[in-house]
Amino acid sequence: GDFAHVDHHRSLRTGFPEAVWGPGKTPEQIAQIMEQLHQRGSLALATRIEAQVHEQIRRLLPQVQYSPLARLCWIPRAQAIAYPGQLSVISAGTADLPVAEEAALTAELSGFQVKRLWDVGVAGIHRLLQNRQALQADVLIVVAGMEGALASVVAGLANCPVIAVPTSIGYGASFQGLAALLTMLNSCAAGVGVVNIDNGFGAAILAGQILRC
Amino acid sequence: GDFAHVDHHRSLRTGFPEAVWGPGKTPEQIAQIMEQLHQRGSLALATRIEAQVHEQIRRLLPQVQYSPLARLCWIPRAQAIAYPGQLSVISAGTADLPVAEEAALTAELSGFQVKRLWDVGVAGIHRLLQNRQALQADVLIVVAGMEGALASVVAGLANCPVIAVPTSIGYGASFQGLAALLTMLNSCAAGVGVVNIDNGFGAAILAGQILRC
Amino acid sequence: GDFAHVDHHRSLRTGFPEAVWGPGKTPEQIAQIMEQLHQRGSLALATRIEAQVHEQIRRLLPQVQYSPLARLCWIPRAQAIAYPGQLSVISAGTADLPVAEEAALTAELSGFQVKRLWDVGVAGIHRLLQNRQALQADVLIVVAGMEGALASVVAGLANCPVIAVPTSIGYGASFQGLAALLTMLNSCAAGVGVVNIDNGFGAAILAGQILRC
Amino acid sequence: GDFAHVDHHRSLRTGFPEAVWGPGKTPEQIAQIMEQLHQRGSLALATRIEAQVHEQIRRLLPQVQYSPLARLCWIPRAQAIAYPGQLSVISAGTADLPVAEEAALTAELSGFQVKRLWDVGVAGIHRLLQNRQALQADVLIVVAGMEGALASVVAGLANCPVIAVPTSIGYGASFQGLAALLTMLNSCAAGVGVVNIDNGFGAAILAGQILRC
Amino acid sequence: GDFAHVDHHRSLRTGFPEAVWGPGKTPEQIAQIMEQLHQRGSLALATRIEAQVHEQIRRLLPQVQYSPLARLCWIPRAQAIAYPGQLSVISAGTADLPVAEEAALTAELSGFQVKRLWDVGVAGIHRLLQNRQALQADVLIVVAGMEGALASVVAGLANCPVIAVPTSIGYGASFQGLAALLTMLNSCAAGVGVVNIDNGFGAAILAGQILRC
Amino acid sequence: GDFAHVDHHRSLRTGFPEAVWGPGKTPEQIAQIMEQLHQRGSLALATRIEAQVHEQIRRLLPQVQYSPLARLCWIPRAQAIAYPGQLSVISAGTADLPVAEEAALTAELSGFQVKRLWDVGVAGIHRLLQNRQALQADVLIVVAGMEGALASVVAGLANCPVIAVPTSIGYGASFQGLAALLTMLNSCAAGVGVVNIDNGFGAAILAGQILRC
Amino acid sequence: GDFAHVDHHRSLRTGFPEAVWGPGKTPEQIAQIMEQLHQRGSLALATRIEAQVHEQIRRLLPQVQYSPLARLCWIPRAQAIAYPGQLSVISAGTADLPVAEEAALTAELSGFQVKRLWDVGVAGIHRLLQNRQALQADVLIVVAGMEGALASVVAGLANCPVIAVPTSIGYGASFQGLAALLTMLNSCAAGVGVVNIDNGFGAAILAGQILRC
Amino acid sequence: GDFAHVDHHRSLRTGFPEAVWGPGKTPEQIAQIMEQLHQRGSLALATRIEAQVHEQIRRLLPQVQYSPLARLCWIPRAQAIAYPGQLSVISAGTADLPVAEEAALTAELSGFQVKRLWDVGVAGIHRLLQNRQALQADVLIVVAGMEGALASVVAGLANCPVIAVPTSIGYGASFQGLAALLTMLNSCAAGVGVVNIDNGFGAAILAGQILRC
Ligand SMILES: Nc1ncnc2c1ncn2[C@@H]1O[C@H](COP(=O)(O)O)[C@@H](O)[C@H]1O
Ligand SMILES: Nc1ncnc2c1ncn2[C@@H]1O[C@H](COP(=O)(O)O)[C@@H](O)[C@H]1O
Ligand SMILES: Nc1ncnc2c1ncn2[C@@H]1O[C@H](COP(=O)(O)O)[C@@H](O)[C@H]1O
Ligand SMILES: Nc1ncnc2c1ncn2[C@@H]1O[C@H](COP(=O)(O)O)[C@@H](O)[C@H]1O
Ligand SMILES: [Mg+2]
Ligand SMILES: [Mg+2]
Ligand SMILES: [Mg+2]
Ligand SMILES: [Mg+2]
Ligand SMILES: [Mg+2]
Ligand SMILES: [Mg+2]
Ligand SMILES: [Mg+2]
Ligand SMILES: [Mg+2]
Repeated sequence: GDFAHVDHHRSLRTGFPEAVWGPGKTPEQIAQIMEQLHQRGSLALATRIEAQVHEQIRRLLPQVQYSPLARLCWIPRAQAIAYPGQLSVISAGTADLPVAEEAALTAELSGFQVKRLWDVGVAGIHRLLQNRQALQADVLIVVAGMEGALASVVAGLANCPVIAVPTSIGYGASFQGLAALLTMLNSCAAGVGVVNIDNGFGAAILAGQILRC
Repeated sequence: GDFAHVDHHRSLRTGFPEAVWGPGKTPEQIAQIMEQLHQRGSLALATRIEAQVHEQIRRLLPQVQYSPLARLCWIPRAQAIAYPGQLSVISAGTADLPVAEEAALTAELSGFQVKRLWDVGVAGIHRLLQNRQALQADVLIVVAGMEGALASVVAGLANCPVIAVPTSIGYGASFQGLAALLTMLNSCAAGVGVVNIDNGFGAAILAGQILRC
Repeated sequence: GDFAHVDHHRSLRTGFPEAVWGPGKTPEQIAQIMEQLHQRGSLALATRIEAQVHEQIRRLLPQVQYSPLARLCWIPRAQAIAYPGQLSVISAGTADLPVAEEAALTAELSGFQVKRLWDVGVAGIHRLLQNRQALQADVLIVVAGMEGALASVVAGLANCPVIAVPTSIGYGASFQGLAALLTMLNSCAAGVGVVNIDNGFGAAILAGQILRC
Repeated sequence: GDFAHVDHHRSLRTGFPEAVWGPGKTPEQIAQIMEQLHQRGSLALATRIEAQVHEQIRRLLPQVQYSPLARLCWIPRAQAIAYPGQLSVISAGTADLPVAEEAALTAELSGFQVKRLWDVGVAGIHRLLQNRQALQADVLIVVAGMEGALASVVAGLANCPVIAVPTSIGYGASFQGLAALLTMLNSCAAGVGVVNIDNGFGAAILAGQILRC
Repeated sequence: GDFAHVDHHRSLRTGFPEAVWGPGKTPEQIAQIMEQLHQRGSLALATRIEAQVHEQIRRLLPQVQYSPLARLCWIPRAQAIAYPGQLSVISAGTADLPVAEEAALTAELSGFQVKRLWDVGVAGIHRLLQNRQALQADVLIVVAGMEGALASVVAGLANCPVIAVPTSIGYGASFQGLAALLTMLNSCAAGVGVVNIDNGFGAAILAGQILRC
Repeated sequence: GDFAHVDHHRSLRTGFPEAVWGPGKTPEQIAQIMEQLHQRGSLALATRIEAQVHEQIRRLLPQVQYSPLARLCWIPRAQAIAYPGQLSVISAGTADLPVAEEAALTAELSGFQVKRLWDVGVAGIHRLLQNRQALQADVLIVVAGMEGALASVVAGLANCPVIAVPTSIGYGASFQGLAALLTMLNSCAAGVGVVNIDNGFGAAILAGQILRC
Repeated sequence: GDFAHVDHHRSLRTGFPEAVWGPGKTPEQIAQIMEQLHQRGSLALATRIEAQVHEQIRRLLPQVQYSPLARLCWIPRAQAIAYPGQLSVISAGTADLPVAEEAALTAELSGFQVKRLWDVGVAGIHRLLQNRQALQADVLIVVAGMEGALASVVAGLANCPVIAVPTSIGYGASFQGLAALLTMLNSCAAGVGVVNIDNGFGAAILAGQILRC
Repeated sequence: GDFAHVDHHRSLRTGFPEAVWGPGKTPEQIAQIMEQLHQRGSLALATRIEAQVHEQIRRLLPQVQYSPLARLCWIPRAQAIAYPGQLSVISAGTADLPVAEEAALTAELSGFQVKRLWDVGVAGIHRLLQNRQALQADVLIVVAGMEGALASVVAGLANCPVIAVPTSIGYGASFQGLAALLTMLNSCAAGVGVVNIDNGFGAAILAGQILRC
């Protein structure tokens, strides 16, 4: 349809295909774009897909797969790829899981190997210190809401790039993720790149760019 | 003068005398209020006093003492008091020293014993872990700018009340201390009470209230 | 489950067990973490639990208790503790009750004795002045929304630490509690420690730290 | 000059002549507008005039008078007016004096009788309660910075309209008067009208409108 | 109940009885407080009452009256009062009516005479100029959302105090009424007192204070 | 009804009739105003009309037409007008379509000719460069959410006025369109006029003013 | 120098040459870029040039001209152009003159004819109504600080596009021009395009694009 | 001195030595820390050093080198390192040079090879498209103020990680770099990691981490 100019050269240009941002699109629009991407041989991936939207997409495109936790809907590439390198995704609290899993699953679907370490926020710093082996990676994604302090602590311990993802988890003066975002931007540990609030997807793409660099 | 109604009963009521907030007052006004407080037997303490203002106050009140680092000016109580209990003041970076010292010195002048631990921010968490004995106190004051993450880490390790003081140190998205303030308010470690940005003085008074409670 | 690394040493380290932050967790996850905490001998406490979530938790863990006003769900410690010292919780308006009661009940469940004084906001200051005996405590928690001025007035009258809890009660320029939060941070009465908007729970833990200090 | 269309009918229309807002105007422009206003028989009043600007205006218009505290510069009306009614101006702290005096002096120059009560902020509420007779007025102007709580307390005690003037006095989370402004807008005591931060002038004009109504 | 300390002296002290702020209270609580106020001979007025809440209150207190437009619920005073003086309420757009009517009706219930002028926003300034007789009043309340410019224009034309009520009507950069609030606070026409966003009730109480002054 | 003073001279004065802003009005009020406008010979246009509201209006005014995408409801002018000149509306993403279509359809209903170019955001800049002929117009409207960068790029390429419409599409740090709004206001390409977030209607009216100028 | 890639095709592409944004450049850099632009036959215009910077530029490029009010520095085109059409620039207060003059002078230097109307803010609306002939133009630029209400009133009266320029004139809740910016974006009169705070230059370029369209 | 706990293991842990953040430190403190770092064999680098501060440091440590543009002061490592890989630093405007050069020089001093491309902002997109070979790198740093749109355009064209650095260059609604920061966080092109406003230093460290990964 002329409602969309799918960017089919993005995969050639940047190494990653365009993904479908779900909100504000009808299930029909999403299915149509996913089918186009799939027919070109790309991974067809749609983000922020609620369970009932997935149901409607599946009626139109029965081969789609779905993760309710990560709210991702996809058709895998016909030809699987497997890139070398190691990515760890680390999250601060249980409530940050949807964003952390969006990052981890996007990276896996893009061909990268992922280690997960959940619920190791700084209020109990020993949980991180006891799992320091997870920091032995080529890239780290740190996902945290509330005050988002985990990114600074991790970046002070790690010998690789750190991608920080603030989440909207919190209340009151967290201002829907603003507090965690500011924390991460002001990290006194250098070597941290920040993405938008709740943007697990973008963190995974950046991690992929780094691992292939 | 009728420009001020000094609250001489505050010491009786709350246990601490009124202190003089320097900005926006003339040296003459400050000296006059300090003298009144001193004559009533209270500690006479003025905060946010720049070096040249101190010079002018000293000409009017030769007995004043001054700390250029803490920007405090005072006449000690005639009768020294010494309260039991242990307070530690912990700061994240070298640039946070003026605020940290304002807290430490205010507490000492009020009769409390203070341990200082400077420059142990979370970018090098081992600096804090190697000095954990400083956390063995009855109250902790944590002073940090930039992302202010130190307060959460300390509160997760300590067995006593933690008072968090955000500082205006930083740039860009620190927004003059707002980032550190939000971090501390959203601390995922419970048991943290937050005071205003750069308010080392208020942190010391609160610590004093706790130690005497 | 590996979705959570419950911090079982927190009670040893900081004197208070980890509590479960309800939002963003399934009833199954909440029940599972509460059971783990209970089996270790800790108070198992979950916050921000709506009535229907409580119903589902109770089916899995029949021994849980619930306060619909405070939105708290808990299993008491096998061995009750009773700490010495007196805490008063003071609230400004009737609409602030849920947050005030979250503070009061958390403190009671943690072993502290609590006096409650409700609806004494500064628009009718005589209501506070006629109940000044409630200020004779070891720690005060002041809960207020709208302009949050009660904390300053109380701190100017009291001879003990004051913990200020802004609430999101209000409209328009209250900006969901921001106005009350700023008021409390800028209190011209020293000796006030502020917690996050609506954070009755955190205020109670800080009060507990102070009472045991 | 054509740089200004002085609104000479304002006095007829609204009861008060246009005043000159000093910042961004040259001393020549200010003097020229003041002279025009004076020749029409109005009070000629310029606000926010620093001492050195006043010196330059005085060279051009020797009859001007000046208050360095209120930063007002004026030529009185040829024919003095004296309106009935009583206005009290109440301020919270010594540092709020310039704004409070801008209000008080503007009102006096406009023909109203003014009582002043300085430095009675809520941290020592007895200072206000001991001076309750100042609340027996036809209109009250309350001037306060930092958390600005004084306006609510006064409005809860007074039987007349209250005009609240937030000041930019404070630091950190006062955000140049924003905290006091929000406090006053959210006052839980009804009957409070708020003007801009540091706008003592506007408060006096509003008070004058009320007293003449 | 002990959930509320109704301020029964407020009427004596400030001339207006306490009103019940509806949100966050159960219909039972509202009815109970209204009954207390009514039995003391006061006007019993509750604000922000949705239609279904009114239904529940009416079952408990059949004598209540209700305005769905103003969302007010009340029992009139046994003894009607009628104050002298004229109040005009002026609104900018049709969508501002609920707030404008909250102001107008509160004033009428409190004993004041009210003229209404609706939908005369500045995009068609002739609508206001053709109705200038409405500006011949003792007090004016101006209600406007979006950019809120009407207050400045009215204050420049009127010879009496102006109370400005910003509304949350608008979208995008109106930020729920913030734009109109800032406009009104920065009015270049002096003599304007501002109340909180959507606070028609407070504007009416202030108008009443002025009319009785 | 007296709830509205429809500005029937606006069409004469400004060239465009008043349009009905739907939110906060009942279907009856909307239908009544539309009928008045239609009877005067104007285009009767209502904006922000949801499908179910349209249903209710249609029962009262069967001749109305409706676009569910643009959320516009209208009765065309009896006498069609056709202005010369060419307007292009360009949008960045598929989710921006409702706002883009509100602009395009409003312009067409007002008598202007419109070219549409959808989904050519800067992440795939070749999509814009390959459609550069759309920039050959007399006026351009650029509609974009998220970071809103499209307006700057277009303005750097075009030889005509550019009207930029930020949309509320995005999440996290887009703050409901604030990010796109700031981007457009700070455009380093001159010649860009910005309207409110999601204000497709206003952009079309401004474009019409320009085309008729 | 390689510090700048001057965009020499901008004039061909967009009809206006690149202008030099002065802040953050040395006088040498500014002179060098101006000379390049002049040699290509373009108007060489630099904005935000303080008097002392102009002095240094003039030493390097003696032919530059300068307006201290508008803070513009320029070398006129060798070949003067004169476009048809009429632009009026209208300002609200005397303090807005520098921005208004930046707009007026930029337009004149670009070949357009300009009428100026200064100091006609809405606090005295008759000043605008008595000068309505200035609204008879092809484009209007409205410059206003403080609450910025003039743009809405003008747009409701005018039959041509209106470009609104908020200025940073004001204090307190004007937040350096934010209040005026929001007012203009929320204008209830359609047909208003807004540019950045204090951006008289950008308003003139947009006006030029419109006049040539 | 005990004012600093220099983190000498940071180089071993994270691959980069601690750098000295200049603001708020005396020249003596800076020189002392630089000497310690140098004696340990690390690069000794201090950031945000104004020319006169450099003069004072040089008197104490004659071997320091200085870049006035980048405001960096350093003593190179005794043993030069040269890492493989290619970094390009791209800036939008001439006024962004200090931040861009801070990034480029920090990277060079850390052993990386750097290509610079200045003044290619999106207002003249052909400047970037004509220099597309600079995008053929292993990592890109994009530095932009005002609306910061360059990062999105570059990320849509490049096949490698992009680090975006917003600058505080701009005025009005740029809010000291906030506009550019939000633009970059909301980039519709994935694969962008954002650092703090003006943080060229942090961008270089992150680039170094990526190049060594
Ligand atoms: N301190 C002040 N605060 C607010 N408005 C003022 C002040 N002083 C003068 N004004 C108003 O500012 C307007 C004059 O603006 P201008 O034309 O720039 O001189 C008049 O409407 C005055 O009533
Ligand atoms: N619509 C309203 N806006 C502002 N304040 C109100 C409103 N309605 C009632 N109030 C005030 O809210 C307070 C009652 O708060 P509460 O104790 O929660 O019932 C009293 O001070 C009332 O005067
Ligand atoms: N006063 C101004 N306001 C906004 N943009 C300007 C101004 N003066 C020059 N510019 C623009 O700023 C850009 C030049 O930036 P730079 O490369 O830093 O010189 C050009 O696109 C100019 O059109
Ligand atoms: N320009 C800069 N931007 C951000 N962080 C920096 C900068 N320069 C130094 N740092 C970091 O600031 C910290 C030093 O802070 P301090 O202890 O106050 O010297 C170290 O972690 C440095 O890595
Ligand atoms: Mg957890
Ligand atoms: Mg350090
Ligand atoms: Mg109450
Ligand atoms: Mg005082
Ligand atoms: Mg209307
Ligand atoms: Mg698309
Ligand atoms: Mg004027
Ligand atoms: Mg340039």
